Amino acid sequence: MKSKYFFALVFVSTSLFAQKNEFRFSDFELSTSLNSNKQFTYSLNYLGKHIIKESAIGLDLAKPLQKLVAFNLLGLDTSEVNTTWKPIWGEQDEIRNNYKEITCHLQSINSPSILMDVQFRIFKDGIGFRYIFPKQNNLQYFIVKDELTEFHLSGDHKAFWIPGDFDTNEYMYNTTKLSEVNAMDAASKEKDIAVTSLISNQSVQTPLMLKSEDGIYINIHEAALLNYPAMNLNLDKTNYTLTSTLVPDPVGNKAYLQAPFNTPWRTIIISNKAKNILASKTILNLNEPTKLEKTDWIKPQKYMGVWWEMHIGKATWQKEGGKHGATTENTKKYLDFAAAHHFDGVLVEGWNKGWEEWFGNWREDVFDFVTPYDDYNIDYLSKYAKEKGIKLIMHHETSGAVTSYERRFDTAFRFMQLYGINTVKTGYVGKIIPRGEHHDGQWMVNHYLRVAEKTGEYKIMLDAHEPVHSTGLHRTYPNWMSNEAARGTEFNNAPTLGIVPEHQTILPFTRLMGGPMDYTPGLFHFKLNQFDSSRKQVVKSTLAKQLALYVTMYSPLQMAADLPENYLKHMDAFQFIEDVPVNWSETNIIDAEPGDFITIARRGKNTKNWFVGSITDENERISTIKLDFLEKGKKYLATIYKDGADANYDQYPESYNIEKKFVDANTSLNIKMARGGGFAISLIQQ
Amino acid sequence: MKSKYFFALVFVSTSLFAQKNEFRFSDFELSTSLNSNKQFTYSLNYLGKHIIKESAIGLDLAKPLQKLVAFNLLGLDTSEVNTTWKPIWGEQDEIRNNYKEITCHLQSINSPSILMDVQFRIFKDGIGFRYIFPKQNNLQYFIVKDELTEFHLSGDHKAFWIPGDFDTNEYMYNTTKLSEVNAMDAASKEKDIAVTSLISNQSVQTPLMLKSEDGIYINIHEAALLNYPAMNLNLDKTNYTLTSTLVPDPVGNKAYLQAPFNTPWRTIIISNKAKNILASKTILNLNEPTKLEKTDWIKPQKYMGVWWEMHIGKATWQKEGGKHGATTENTKKYLDFAAAHHFDGVLVEGWNKGWEEWFGNWREDVFDFVTPYDDYNIDYLSKYAKEKGIKLIMHHETSGAVTSYERRFDTAFRFMQLYGINTVKTGYVGKIIPRGEHHDGQWMVNHYLRVAEKTGEYKIMLDAHEPVHSTGLHRTYPNWMSNEAARGTEFNNAPTLGIVPEHQTILPFTRLMGGPMDYTPGLFHFKLNQFDSSRKQVVKSTLAKQLALYVTMYSPLQMAADLPENYLKHMDAFQFIEDVPVNWSETNIIDAEPGDFITIARRGKNTKNWFVGSITDENERISTIKLDFLEKGKKYLATIYKDGADANYDQYPESYNIEKKFVDANTSLNIKMARGGGFAISLIQQ
Repeated sequence: MKSKYFFALVFVSTSLFAQKNEFRFSDFELSTSLNSNKQFTYSLNYLGKHIIKESAIGLDLAKPLQKLVAFNLLGLDTSEVNTTWKPIWGEQDEIRNNYKEITCHLQSINSPSILMDVQFRIFKDGIGFRYIFPKQNNLQYFIVKDELTEFHLSGDHKAFWIPGDFDTNEYMYNTTKLSEVNAMDAASKEKDIAVTSLISNQSVQTPLMLKSEDGIYINIHEAALLNYPAMNLNLDKTNYTLTSTLVPDPVGNKAYLQAPFNTPWRTIIISNKAKNILASKTILNLNEPTKLEKTDWIKPQKYMGVWWEMHIGKATWQKEGGKHGATTENTKKYLDFAAAHHFDGVLVEGWNKGWEEWFGNWREDVFDFVTPYDDYNIDYLSKYAKEKGIKLIMHHETSGAVTSYERRFDTAFRFMQLYGINTVKTGYVGKIIPRGEHHDGQWMVNHYLRVAEKTGEYKIMLDAHEPVHSTGLHRTYPNWMSNEAARGTEFNNAPTLGIVPEHQTILPFTRLMGGPMDYTPGLFHFKLNQFDSSRKQVVKSTLAKQLALYVTMYSPLQMAADLPENYLKHMDAFQFIEDVPVNWSETNIIDAEPGDFITIARRGKNTKNWFVGSITDENERISTIKLDFLEKGKKYLATIYKDGADANYDQYPESYNIEKKFVDANTSLNIKMARGGGFAISLIQQ
Repeated sequence: MKSKYFFALVFVSTSLFAQKNEFRFSDFELSTSLNSNKQFTYSLNYLGKHIIKESAIGLDLAKPLQKLVAFNLLGLDTSEVNTTWKPIWGEQDEIRNNYKEITCHLQSINSPSILMDVQFRIFKDGIGFRYIFPKQNNLQYFIVKDELTEFHLSGDHKAFWIPGDFDTNEYMYNTTKLSEVNAMDAASKEKDIAVTSLISNQSVQTPLMLKSEDGIYINIHEAALLNYPAMNLNLDKTNYTLTSTLVPDPVGNKAYLQAPFNTPWRTIIISNKAKNILASKTILNLNEPTKLEKTDWIKPQKYMGVWWEMHIGKATWQKEGGKHGATTENTKKYLDFAAAHHFDGVLVEGWNKGWEEWFGNWREDVFDFVTPYDDYNIDYLSKYAKEKGIKLIMHHETSGAVTSYERRFDTAFRFMQLYGINTVKTGYVGKIIPRGEHHDGQWMVNHYLRVAEKTGEYKIMLDAHEPVHSTGLHRTYPNWMSNEAARGTEFNNAPTLGIVPEHQTILPFTRLMGGPMDYTPGLFHFKLNQFDSSRKQVVKSTLAKQLALYVTMYSPLQMAADLPENYLKHMDAFQFIEDVPVNWSETNIIDAEPGDFITIARRGKNTKNWFVGSITDENERISTIKLDFLEKGKKYLATIYKDGADANYDQYPESYNIEKKFVDANTSLNIKMARGGGFAISLIQQ
């Protein structure tokens, strides 16, 4: 039936369809046109302002050898959707999905010609668009050599960016004008990232956060990255045009595809208020609903872990050397503490044999994922954890040897089932095997998905470290709960750059646009020479800010990263970590400015209680919060965890005050945040 | 203890060891020397003649970045071994392993210096040598960029060669002087090989068969190819020096290794009699004994298959199109015929879903290896086969998507167990995935071995098609019974070059030096337009020669490749296929000349009966055979299957005579072979 419809359109296209079309929805005006070279372009206005100037689309194919850059327009379809849906878990109970869809049916002018649709969806806070290759006679299996999507910006915006790279997204963010982007220079300052594959001096990654001179916030990213490589962006500084750069495979191809196929969505989220960027659900809406029939086994979790003590030199992952962290005794200590404070899980890294020579040799069969060190009694510990009402969390570090992992992951997941372990943290530190593949290429994108699907079959929850950036796939695969995919807490211990105070005010505008991040907050000890006096690293945060991150940095898997003995020194502050939920009925982005500050309030899932987190960058700041989001006429006990009067990130990070008072919806709070500080509030309805 | 010994040697080396050393064993004289550039060289004389002139050894490492080409000699060890061992199956009951071993302990003059041994074994029919990297402080994980092994030949020998290639060994053989090697030209005539990756105009593959002007036969190959890429040879025509060229990985590296490590053996088999080359067991002797504890489940087999009918257009692998070969009914027909004639198995190709779009798209997940087409009732057929005392043989075509296969092979082998199927033919037609890897690179060499080991665990026998060349690993992994790894019977149907009559007289001197080949002989119908009148291809062989191949082309898995209906027309000749064993107690290479003819007699395993096969090239020839290998004083009934008086490969290939007579050890037979012909004899002790 579909082809019949197309056929009909061919005959009427010249008369029926103008070469330029305009579509309006909410505050947006989208134009598409075919220029004199038969190039198909789009442009986008917001509140009457040019956001995206005329920008070309297209693809370069390696097989068949064709550039898809000139087209005839066969027809247009438009429709509108306005529905709501309920995420399995997340930041709010219900999400509205309201958009206008325009599908432009194009036919390439090559011979033989290829049918390709460009499909746009205009939401209230931006647009998404993607390429669709319908089933057709002239195209079955095909290979993408390059994608030629342009984003022609209207000026020299302020940009929050990290260098374009095929293998890592763990760079520190840079804040510069677009004209000052210098990816190689920025990357050259980084010494602590395991594997980098820089693209060029003008390449940046998505999500790319921009702010125009007239105060428009623009976020460029992608949604539903499936069976396709990740997109980087190459900047032409002469005209502020960004062009898609896909991650290559070992022979330089980008994607091996079969029609029918649709690419991931290219997304542009736009608002004149920064907080609306954080509130956007457009990327999630562009992902498909889950196909999982049963999801009741998927549970947001708070967890601790035998992990940070390895980073700071108290213990080691490997058994050799006598400082093994993942011993039965030490794990029991964590289980006891975590259970006493109502945590859900304890991650144990370094539990399995192979850590003595795990890194840097680009070799297979480093780990088998089923053989514990002989000082780690997994049978005993899994039973012990069960008695305490808590679960072990599995760790599968692949060291990049993904072929090895795929050969063994079925066995590894069965091993987990045997011990009642239903959450796994995966890791991809090192150069990828298959050799020549990159962390963010199509093959690896498919691998991460395979793990998500396999773990889904085994009813296992997944948290991937060092994967490709997140693109909202947690809607479709809700057991794939969180990712690292950015510079997380562990970089506080990196000798060269560490983590700067503004970092956590940028991440929600960049990395987290694609989905939850396992940032692993909750450090309570700030000088990292605690077990190794030679270390100079410090955590550039106050303790109160660490608490605030549980609200500002959304994840359904939320870690309390520090050691039990460090928490024991500040149990009054730890109470917030114990109380804060990891799943929410409502989220209110109170105020935010990328690079400066973020204040968010959230209501715990199916409760009346709210939790507020507010963080600042390296500047001190007073945050004013109207509690008008509270239920009218109800009294709440507010517990305010804030920076001490002398606190700041570089001198007295551990100085904090805890204040309790009764508040209601009419209350307004003015709270000072120290340099590198923040505050957290629990609001318990009385 | 080992290092202590080395230490002692360092101090005495200058005085104790001369820079030139000579070693004699049997007819060989091996010399090693350190020249003025500290290069380590070897040379080899046979019966006083130069076979290998001074030739350098060495390796170029990518990590650490070092060329291992200049050395100090720390010491020498020599020893002699003279033992026998019994193969699990093979050409003879017992194999003598008699050699002198010389281990040269070298230390590179790089800083830091690397310890490397060169270990030679001199046998009665040639030598092997390899590089050994002992455990040492200066070398743990390392990467080989190139191997620099030279074979400096003494003249412009006649060579039987195929073009050097990283992906295929299915070329037609060329017979030229070394000075006339032109690999690109030769390859350009080939149109029917799925994937080729030629190296250079001067590159040839091993086994390379040579014959000097003064009648010395020389075969260069490798033994025990494990965790290392295959070796090709690059020819310098100015001095007739061959240099090793290893197959690269996607980024150009050759091998990722960890000390202690030893490379495969480089082998040079030498004799003034061609038949001694075929009789050599040196490559087998250089492989390790099996580690399998139980081997009683490993059985040599004769099999038929739903296979050739797809090649000649009677049927198709795919179900779509209505000519599906692997139907329940058709398989029953093969099972009935095979069982009636005491075969062991029936191979069924095209049994599983995926064949509609299986080739040429460089994609994963083409096959899942466990889903039959719905007109193939594997449950019924496996039971039916069992009733008939025969077994189905499984087919796993990977289409080159090896990552897919590795993810699924455990499941696939369990599926086989479920149906009582214990032999698998694997296939690797297509470009390899991991993309950028080659059929013959280290990663794939490791893959083939993984399959051999996995099938061993599941008590499954293995026959790999399109794998790397064989190197005697069937001694160590006796369930890995046969390989294709050369131009087999299917190429009779290839439109461009087909198979020339001399082909089978070269294969035993080249491909089969490394081990059994699943050549799939036994064609009884020679014009291949039987089901498709447009086909021009003909089988360039007589029927009698097809019978002879069961003796001349050794394999413990031996197919009768043709269709039951074609055999039914010549059941008197088929009797030889029914009678001929696939496992032997004794083998007598009666006479042979590469490219011209081969005559072999073999005694069936634990029987008194002998079987003779003799084949010729495109020339007719009279073969004289003294039956002095028969037991003295015993009478035998000889059944002689020979070319008819008018037979020849291009006119009357199906013309044959069968003659029966009584013979004994004093009998001498003179039998004429037609052009492209041959004969087979069964000798049954009375």
